Amino acid sequence: MAETEVAQVRFGIVGCANIARKVARAINLAPNSILHAVASRSIDKAKRFASDNGLDPRVKIYGSYDQLLDDPSVDAVYMPLPTSLHVHWAVMAAQKGKHVLIEKPTALDVGELDTILEACQSNGLQFMDGSMWLHHPRTVKMKEMLFDSKLLGNVNYIYSTSTTSASPEFFENDIRVKGNLDSLGALGDLGWYCLGAVLWAKNYQLPTVVTALPDVTTNSDGVIISFSASIQYTEPSSSGATTNAIIHCSFLADTSMDLTITGSKGSLNLNDFIIPQRESSASFEFTLGAKFVDLHIGWNVKPERVVVNCDELPQEGLMVEEFARVVAGIRTTPGMLLDPKWPEISRKTQMLVDAVKKSVDLGCKPVYFLK
Amino acid sequence: MAETEVAQVRFGIVGCANIARKVARAINLAPNSILHAVASRSIDKAKRFASDNGLDPRVKIYGSYDQLLDDPSVDAVYMPLPTSLHVHWAVMAAQKGKHVLIEKPTALDVGELDTILEACQSNGLQFMDGSMWLHHPRTVKMKEMLFDSKLLGNVNYIYSTSTTSASPEFFENDIRVKGNLDSLGALGDLGWYCLGAVLWAKNYQLPTVVTALPDVTTNSDGVIISFSASIQYTEPSSSGATTNAIIHCSFLADTSMDLTITGSKGSLNLNDFIIPQRESSASFEFTLGAKFVDLHIGWNVKPERVVVNCDELPQEGLMVEEFARVVAGIRTTPGMLLDPKWPEISRKTQMLVDAVKKSVDLGCKPVYFLK
Repeated sequence: MAETEVAQVRFGIVGCANIARKVARAINLAPNSILHAVASRSIDKAKRFASDNGLDPRVKIYGSYDQLLDDPSVDAVYMPLPTSLHVHWAVMAAQKGKHVLIEKPTALDVGELDTILEACQSNGLQFMDGSMWLHHPRTVKMKEMLFDSKLLGNVNYIYSTSTTSASPEFFENDIRVKGNLDSLGALGDLGWYCLGAVLWAKNYQLPTVVTALPDVTTNSDGVIISFSASIQYTEPSSSGATTNAIIHCSFLADTSMDLTITGSKGSLNLNDFIIPQRESSASFEFTLGAKFVDLHIGWNVKPERVVVNCDELPQEGLMVEEFARVVAGIRTTPGMLLDPKWPEISRKTQMLVDAVKKSVDLGCKPVYFLK
Repeated sequence: MAETEVAQVRFGIVGCANIARKVARAINLAPNSILHAVASRSIDKAKRFASDNGLDPRVKIYGSYDQLLDDPSVDAVYMPLPTSLHVHWAVMAAQKGKHVLIEKPTALDVGELDTILEACQSNGLQFMDGSMWLHHPRTVKMKEMLFDSKLLGNVNYIYSTSTTSASPEFFENDIRVKGNLDSLGALGDLGWYCLGAVLWAKNYQLPTVVTALPDVTTNSDGVIISFSASIQYTEPSSSGATTNAIIHCSFLADTSMDLTITGSKGSLNLNDFIIPQRESSASFEFTLGAKFVDLHIGWNVKPERVVVNCDELPQEGLMVEEFARVVAGIRTTPGMLLDPKWPEISRKTQMLVDAVKKSVDLGCKPVYFLK
């Protein structure tokens, strides 16, 4: 194998969803990956995707997913298919020896995800989901501050939202509100981020109990279009804190992507945690030891803004780069192991999605995690 | 009665709690009020309060609440007593012909509050609770924007917090965590603001149902020290919106005072809604029609910051001025009616406090408001 082929992981995109445009760009931006092929169920749609996005004429165009998976030059796939199709096509990809980068939610439930993970694991293939924000340098910076016990102290409370005011066309046609395509609706599409943020802030400790709030709204298909949930850690974490979290996700309210983490000694706050307002830099606010001044007529400290540059690669480029780094390592270094971190993050997030779903189905009853 | 006496409402402060220092200053700052007397259960404590706060030597010092209420020169009282004492002393004040400005929570339940309101009403006396933030010009400005349907659109979601990291001494000694003094704990002290903010944002429409979340924490006295609640408006308001609200209040997490209101077309956000970070000006953020740019690599708009000056009087001074304006009107203008707005605001807020308390007592069952 020539050295350039080894250095650059060759991606195939399975499914030409809108989000694939962003990831196609990211694959070409990341230095260790290259877009090798795209596939749609129709060759015309795949061709249009290639021309609309100015893809290199050398990118192969396939009119079926199978053809792409049979291409021996494809090392890894990026898969932005409707959630209900994930288990079939991701397992198929793994059986054909392709590493799997898959859009969130990873599957309809953790049972399906385990089928995918098992297929990847047994074929020695890396798995990662498409949570881009985890790869942003701002996220790395926040985590450093979060786990510096001299700063925030014990995490007491986490709050996160993901809302978007969807159009009538969205409610009519989008796969994310169709019971037969993406039956998790706002829970899978938006809740994935907020539940993932809670786990992230708790260093991937699982909670004790998850309870859907009574404000859940479903459409005529029974798909969740708006909901909130309470996530409780009743056993203290290694930092000694019990933590409560609340998330709110909705297709019915204007755009918000809030994340607030409040500890015993400080708090951290941002309003664009999933998609930063600007691509080249992002910020968050940090308040430490806020008290009121004498007579309670003001605060002793004001929130401080921390700005983090992101000018080498956008977050989705960093995601692709990290995935390709692991994949290249496995392909070129004998005995190199899969990175278990990424499937573990996906699996725990999917477990929380399942728990909220179960709580909704039970009429907002608490759902406990067994220890 | 001399004209200066008519122009300035003469206040008596009943109880020398810490918050009384702030309101004593506000009474002296407001142009239409003057501090006439202070009372504590001990004359020494009242004297110390006067000297510690540099009160004018003409301010009368009383060693009992009864003595102050018997002073015919006192027009109105400000009452920062433990909540369990409100009904007794506020009714007593009304019976002695004093207008009543009382600290929040107004009473242990709406039954007690109604006793107070009835005593004020039947004696022709104005009632107001000590929610200072309602009087800030920022609050007025936000309300203008909130009820301009071209801006936020229908209000879909409200989120509000009031948290403070209380010291071990607070948990040991403060009246706000003592079952026999302030049995509403964090619900009365902090929840009053958040529930009040929800009502404010909904133009004082009562919700359909209130549900405490399972994250409630109580101390050994059974007093709530941390809780969250879901407030649902399932019937559309006049603007056509059904609205969900979530509040979180805690003595266990670092200082926060967040208020976010998300409509169908925009959102409004501030992090110091109860006590502004600075006394002389305050701000909030406003985002209108936020969408993602092509490829979802950023936002089309950034939050806009609106700064509102508050340089004539601080918010507590504006509160005293408004209360004294109504009182002076009643005293000087024959046939002038009480302003029903302020008791109504207090009563609805207390109803929501009661509903959360009932939900907590029922193990987080939903509590419905009858229409």
